[in-house]
Amino acid sequence: MSGLGFFNNPASVAVIGASTDPEKIGGRPIRYLQEFGYAGAIYPINPHRAEVQGLPAYPQLDDLPAVPEVAIIAVSGANAVAQVVRCATLGVKGCVIMASGFGETGDEPGLGWQREMLDAAARTGMRIVGPNSQGLANFATGSVLSFSTLFTEQPPEDGAIAIVSQSGALCSVPYGLLREAGYGVRYAHATGNDIDVTAAELAAEVVSDPEVRLLLIYMEDITDLDSLAIMARKALDRGIPVIALKGGRSEAGQKAAASHTGALATEESVVDAFLEKHGIWRARSTRDLVAAVGLYLRPGIPKGERLAIVSNSGAICVLAADAAEEEGLSLSELSGTSRAELGATLPSFASVENPIDVTAALLTDSSLFGKVFPILGRDDAVDACLVGIPVAGRGYDVDRFANDIAAFEAEAGLPVVMAVPQANIAGVFRARGIVVFADESEAVHALAQYLRHHRLMAWAKTQPRTSKPDPSDGDPRIRFSAGRSVLNEFQSLRLLQNIGVPAVEHMLVLHPDEVTAAIEQLGGGPVVIKGCSSEATHKSELGLVRIGVALSDATGVVKEMFAIMNREGIASEGVIIARMVRGVHEGMLGARFDPMFGPVVVIGAGGIHVEAMPDVQLLLPPFSVDEAIRAIHRLRIAAVLGGVRGAPPVDLSAWAQAAVAVGDAMLDEELAIHELDVNPLMLLPLGGPVQPAVCAVDAVVIRGSGVPGRAAMGSGAESVLRPPR
Amino acid sequence: MSGLGFFNNPASVAVIGASTDPEKIGGRPIRYLQEFGYAGAIYPINPHRAEVQGLPAYPQLDDLPAVPEVAIIAVSGANAVAQVVRCATLGVKGCVIMASGFGETGDEPGLGWQREMLDAAARTGMRIVGPNSQGLANFATGSVLSFSTLFTEQPPEDGAIAIVSQSGALCSVPYGLLREAGYGVRYAHATGNDIDVTAAELAAEVVSDPEVRLLLIYMEDITDLDSLAIMARKALDRGIPVIALKGGRSEAGQKAAASHTGALATEESVVDAFLEKHGIWRARSTRDLVAAVGLYLRPGIPKGERLAIVSNSGAICVLAADAAEEEGLSLSELSGTSRAELGATLPSFASVENPIDVTAALLTDSSLFGKVFPILGRDDAVDACLVGIPVAGRGYDVDRFANDIAAFEAEAGLPVVMAVPQANIAGVFRARGIVVFADESEAVHALAQYLRHHRLMAWAKTQPRTSKPDPSDGDPRIRFSAGRSVLNEFQSLRLLQNIGVPAVEHMLVLHPDEVTAAIEQLGGGPVVIKGCSSEATHKSELGLVRIGVALSDATGVVKEMFAIMNREGIASEGVIIARMVRGVHEGMLGARFDPMFGPVVVIGAGGIHVEAMPDVQLLLPPFSVDEAIRAIHRLRIAAVLGGVRGAPPVDLSAWAQAAVAVGDAMLDEELAIHELDVNPLMLLPLGGPVQPAVCAVDAVVIRGSGVPGRAAMGSGAESVLRPPR
Repeated sequence: MSGLGFFNNPASVAVIGASTDPEKIGGRPIRYLQEFGYAGAIYPINPHRAEVQGLPAYPQLDDLPAVPEVAIIAVSGANAVAQVVRCATLGVKGCVIMASGFGETGDEPGLGWQREMLDAAARTGMRIVGPNSQGLANFATGSVLSFSTLFTEQPPEDGAIAIVSQSGALCSVPYGLLREAGYGVRYAHATGNDIDVTAAELAAEVVSDPEVRLLLIYMEDITDLDSLAIMARKALDRGIPVIALKGGRSEAGQKAAASHTGALATEESVVDAFLEKHGIWRARSTRDLVAAVGLYLRPGIPKGERLAIVSNSGAICVLAADAAEEEGLSLSELSGTSRAELGATLPSFASVENPIDVTAALLTDSSLFGKVFPILGRDDAVDACLVGIPVAGRGYDVDRFANDIAAFEAEAGLPVVMAVPQANIAGVFRARGIVVFADESEAVHALAQYLRHHRLMAWAKTQPRTSKPDPSDGDPRIRFSAGRSVLNEFQSLRLLQNIGVPAVEHMLVLHPDEVTAAIEQLGGGPVVIKGCSSEATHKSELGLVRIGVALSDATGVVKEMFAIMNREGIASEGVIIARMVRGVHEGMLGARFDPMFGPVVVIGAGGIHVEAMPDVQLLLPPFSVDEAIRAIHRLRIAAVLGGVRGAPPVDLSAWAQAAVAVGDAMLDEELAIHELDVNPLMLLPLGGPVQPAVCAVDAVVIRGSGVPGRAAMGSGAESVLRPPR
Repeated sequence: MSGLGFFNNPASVAVIGASTDPEKIGGRPIRYLQEFGYAGAIYPINPHRAEVQGLPAYPQLDDLPAVPEVAIIAVSGANAVAQVVRCATLGVKGCVIMASGFGETGDEPGLGWQREMLDAAARTGMRIVGPNSQGLANFATGSVLSFSTLFTEQPPEDGAIAIVSQSGALCSVPYGLLREAGYGVRYAHATGNDIDVTAAELAAEVVSDPEVRLLLIYMEDITDLDSLAIMARKALDRGIPVIALKGGRSEAGQKAAASHTGALATEESVVDAFLEKHGIWRARSTRDLVAAVGLYLRPGIPKGERLAIVSNSGAICVLAADAAEEEGLSLSELSGTSRAELGATLPSFASVENPIDVTAALLTDSSLFGKVFPILGRDDAVDACLVGIPVAGRGYDVDRFANDIAAFEAEAGLPVVMAVPQANIAGVFRARGIVVFADESEAVHALAQYLRHHRLMAWAKTQPRTSKPDPSDGDPRIRFSAGRSVLNEFQSLRLLQNIGVPAVEHMLVLHPDEVTAAIEQLGGGPVVIKGCSSEATHKSELGLVRIGVALSDATGVVKEMFAIMNREGIASEGVIIARMVRGVHEGMLGARFDPMFGPVVVIGAGGIHVEAMPDVQLLLPPFSVDEAIRAIHRLRIAAVLGGVRGAPPVDLSAWAQAAVAVGDAMLDEELAIHELDVNPLMLLPLGGPVQPAVCAVDAVVIRGSGVPGRAAMGSGAESVLRPPR
């Protein structure tokens, strides 16, 4: 991650394939470097020209007076490969390969060329950006190693925003939108195929720039999780908000969804969980990526999320309040003092409650805003303001409004957004540095993103840092790819107990003669009786589950189950006799290995409809009990867990602890858990007789087949007639 | 509704309170009428001037050479009242009262003035728009009886769009946004307090204008449902889409939510149901109100909702496909022919699947769009197109792109939207009449609204027209306001059976001696036993519900229930003995009277968590079985109703028929049902032994207390030991 600084501002740049035409790929970087004030050495390389765009040109790399720090490769195909190899040999630190036609084709010779370049670079430690890269741009120093046409369409201006994108277009689009809106952009990096240096790695580099205050990142796929996590942590430590836009659903995610619990945990929801865990806001569109930028660049951090709304239109007050509620922002409850002061200031027919409708009186009394805002600024209940001016123009003292609002924003230090549909009027406010949107819903949406993102960042800072697996152990994400072995229910329950997830009290019997003794050891019937076989995946459908069996009937039922397993030709590994446990509610707890993200824990409502009507949240281990409780609170079922309709509240903390235990177990290489599914996990009353107040009554665990599981698992036989702990 | 044409284009207009200052409320209409080409007579009335803005002025109404058809009242308070009374007396057809300070203050004297004006108008049949009205504008004729300042900020141009708003600001904002975007607007009506003529009534008038092709309506409260329904039907008949924005939550809705089932059916969801039933699209913001206007104005109606995406950026292809999926649009599956033709046209590395990435080759081959779009136009699978051009400018033949896309749109007759972030580039496409948005998500959002609104309109046209209650019966919405009487469970189940909702087979016993005979009549135990009292609202909590009671235990249980009712001091109206019925799933069916909308039927998932985790849809009677099935399909529980995890599918049609029966019963004055709650309604297997395959096992009905209920209800006593049918 560090050590890529030379890409951001190389001491010297060679342009291989330098063109005299400043509109060509090999010409544009030379033009930009000169035009935007790059102070280092520029070496155009062109075997047919002595001079390129006013600079002396060199026939080939070896002719250069010095080894360039970075080389732009603007030639293609086999020639590009040869040039990259030569760069590596000469000791160039990094190459930016602009040509396409490599790995993205999915075909030879592109793939082979790509391997060849990587090999050459690896030999000398040279780093590669691209291929298929639009290039890197740093407008602080004029180090613009890019052929983006947008830099001529929208002339650059240095600023506090960094853009890092895997796609050239999705680098140019936010750059263009931000510049059109007047914001300065420092970095506009478009990396391309990411065969070596990834967008996340470059992003980790740019957030080290002390003048960067906001990072926008576009990713087509999320592969370099380590760099992304490191970048996110660095950004959090420095207070730099990171907004990410990710396009597309990956094939890997679709494959993962085919497994049982995995069908709930789609690739995209794992991405959501990963980004959230790292304090990164996920944008849903290019608009989302840039819409709130003006707020992010304001000094300070928001103190809360309570909104005061002020407008000269009652209708806009109503619509803005509607929008605030939809976005989860609450309205400030103004103090008695504030209301009295507003009452003394506003006309009698105006509202002194929030939203504050200053009415059309604004037309005749231009001083109203100057009087109203200081009152709001003194009220502790006001964390942010929305000002809606749907109608203005001739007759309105818009300049004064703008001065009053800008002064308030500076003095009170609160975020202010405006909703102003008239473009010319909006311009007056923007000129004073106020963040203006065309309508109230956009203004509230952007404000909510800004406020909630800061809350997310504050929360993410308190979370445990992801522990890094020791690279010598190999990549845990692929360690089970060789095969899997399914544990039967008895083995699964036992493993759960060993990792700290409470399971129902139960016995395994291998013969009907043992049934009576087993039930007596459990304290008598009625009991639950289940056939135990690692080969029976749908026990209920086979008649291998019987609930509420009396002692007198139990032996007969057990005989029947052995007969069923025989008849169905599935391994008969005994019959489980378990206590009857009924929870106040049924939860579920699952885990699996995502091919990209590694272990993923799923927590949600349990029961038979968990797939048809999923109500689940994902957690990426390691996570804390608090984090698990936060996830539980986002479930739909959360509405009843606190106790409704005479039911007692359940113990969320016990559930969360069980989830943490599963998360930790997924990180434990010794346990080699590939997949785990507890459904139902009975949720028991908070403070009730059973502690901890959760109980797994059914479970399936799948382990990596190559791993004997020496730590937590014994054979079934040795546990016969003995409760598993 | 009809008969308000004079407000849209009066033959003559008096302006009472005429001002020489064209910026004043009493001056601006005179200026606008003259400036915008009004051809009728304008009579300024001003006792102090002989001439106003170049027109002869008159001291008072009585001095006019003729009775004006419409009068603008630009004076305030008691004077306004006097002028309105005089207008009525003279035979003026309608007044537009611009002054505020009337009913909206909630106080006297404003309220009294309002009543006085209404009385005077009623005596002569004069109609009143306002007070607190910004006024009415018709740019086809220049009849601009409005003081909106926006008409000077954004000069008007006649067009096919009508705006009708209760709020002045929310008339001016869409007017301004549309004019800024270059769309013509014919009507810009802002009605104000709506004490007589309502926004809905005026809207019904403007949709009669044969040149209006789109209506935007803003409402702060929805009161005039009849006019709204009539307007919506007229608009549907004429194929005019209506987009409504409604601000705020009404107090009436909050009050209604306090009742049991009502807590689910919030005011806002009733509004949603009402608008949807009438084919009106509900916008959520001012942006939503205007964003898709360009699509609505295109000729023809969409043939489907399958989208083809074309871009010169792969990333935009991906993001647009993501957005389409989120908005519920599917991507066109191109035919083999199309793919072959695309393959022959596009560079080898481009995609011939949808989304179609024409790649950066667009820069070198400006003819690409002209070749690609005709292929899409010939493919039946393509119903609409999105074209994303994230980067263009120097080097790109944008004019040619625009010509090619405009030609395709005209020839293929398909809706096309573009996503073009660069404002100057977007302008080139807009100039060709193409609908352009700044980003792919906005483009897809607007397209989805346009396509889905047309589907809604087509569906709404097939729905039964709301039957109008006979006015001589009084308003059904208030007929039960005097009081309510709660039926006990026996009476409630009996009423359900009488209106056609299948209920569990059951008996009412008044003495423990009758229990055995009752159970034998039901075919033996086990049975469900429930205390029957109209005063017991939480039977389970009181121990008045016992499930699975054997014949041998039943008499004892019944004795206990009588004892409980005695002890609790609640009316003991017998004990119900019912068959055990277990559904595949539990549904619910409810109904209530909304203070504004009248009868509302609630259909949803049943069980004890219906309030904490509501999964409900609303239906406004009368509705069809199809409409009820459509509502069921929108429930979350719909995912399991077709049969999952070995459960059989349930009979949706039986459930929908029960809902229709409840809806019809709610419209039946004789039945006088105020509120009805069936939970659970057991959902039984489709094609199973029980027909119809739903069964109400618990119910509470509340009736209007003044109504004896002669049609459907008997006393409990006469039914003892007799099943209720």
